[in-house]
Amino acid sequence: MSLVFYDFPMAPSPRRARIALLEKGVSFQTVIVDLMANEHLSESFRQISPTCTVPALRLPDGAVLTENNGIAAYLEAAYPEPPLLGTTPREKGEVAMWTARVEFCGLMAVAEALRNGNPAMKDRAITGPTNYPQIPELSARGLARFREFLDMLEAHLPGRDFIVGDRLSVADIAGVVAVDFARVIQIKPDPEQHANLIRWRKGLHARPSFSR
Amino acid sequence: MSLVFYDFPMAPSPRRARIALLEKGVSFQTVIVDLMANEHLSESFRQISPTCTVPALRLPDGAVLTENNGIAAYLEAAYPEPPLLGTTPREKGEVAMWTARVEFCGLMAVAEALRNGNPAMKDRAITGPTNYPQIPELSARGLARFREFLDMLEAHLPGRDFIVGDRLSVADIAGVVAVDFARVIQIKPDPEQHANLIRWRKGLHARPSFSR
Repeated sequence: MSLVFYDFPMAPSPRRARIALLEKGVSFQTVIVDLMANEHLSESFRQISPTCTVPALRLPDGAVLTENNGIAAYLEAAYPEPPLLGTTPREKGEVAMWTARVEFCGLMAVAEALRNGNPAMKDRAITGPTNYPQIPELSARGLARFREFLDMLEAHLPGRDFIVGDRLSVADIAGVVAVDFARVIQIKPDPEQHANLIRWRKGLHARPSFSR
Repeated sequence: MSLVFYDFPMAPSPRRARIALLEKGVSFQTVIVDLMANEHLSESFRQISPTCTVPALRLPDGAVLTENNGIAAYLEAAYPEPPLLGTTPREKGEVAMWTARVEFCGLMAVAEALRNGNPAMKDRAITGPTNYPQIPELSARGLARFREFLDMLEAHLPGRDFIVGDRLSVADIAGVVAVDFARVIQIKPDPEQHANLIRWRKGLHARPSFSR
């Protein structure tokens, strides 16, 4: 009755949950959902994840959680050490705040740029069971917004190894996943403009959880 | 040295945090940021909230939290009763999962429909300090996605007074705020198609925190 993790190695969203599971040191089984073969849109997977998204995590009691925030909240409560959502009330607030910023300004921007610009994602402009056509202006907006996101992170990171406090949190995980995934839209941090961001990312890449 | 809450009565995002503060029974001072007069884009408010968004909450130590998830995480840790983020690990996961679904499928959909369709929001297609032009196709997509969101909630709510478990959570708060705010895009639940959703909303509207 262990945890069952529904994963796809190349996708950014399940990578966030995978890193959290590895950092918690929890044992879990992995089931690969092949997004390239549209397995996430199959009727059988929809029974598991009604939004047709990975990550999903099946708990020992059979319940399934989706959404990174849902999985992280469960893991933090069930396996408190090491904490990934902050320790003091203020830190918990800052971790959730920065995670929301990374999601809205970073992860959403890169997703919009990719899904609305890549011919291979025709009609898959947004995740979920329903097809929506691509909107080319939304792809262009995503590129512009992602560049702003890099500048926002850079402005926050001087003197810091982590986005909040002195330890890894889900905000760092989401941030590195966003920056790494932006290779698909040909945007990468600039050594002169984003020196602190690059140093922060290098420190996190040294952790085994980020490379597996 | 009390909490200072940066609010605007007509906007949906600060309404979520306001309901949470009232349900916690915390005392706080309110500062109105007049979004209609663009006070959120002023240099002085940007010092408080760099993303130019409300809600924002100044803590007794002077730190400022923005983003509803950030404010909710702080409040839950600083004022545990009554819990708004779930109690067991599974409930905590489900509350965060449903909140993410409401944000992505509901609140984002209505925001995209409004901001990309209302002439008064020209160049304010997305929150934040930078102007982005409206994208009419994104407005149309928001309308379609919001209708899907109502159906998703309706499918979940038979036999339930709350989205998760037997008590109010931030998922309910986000859900009701999304459904109520959709009046600005002329979408409302249908008595025949959304009977459970309407019953759920009516129960929550009876709480003083939702009407203030």
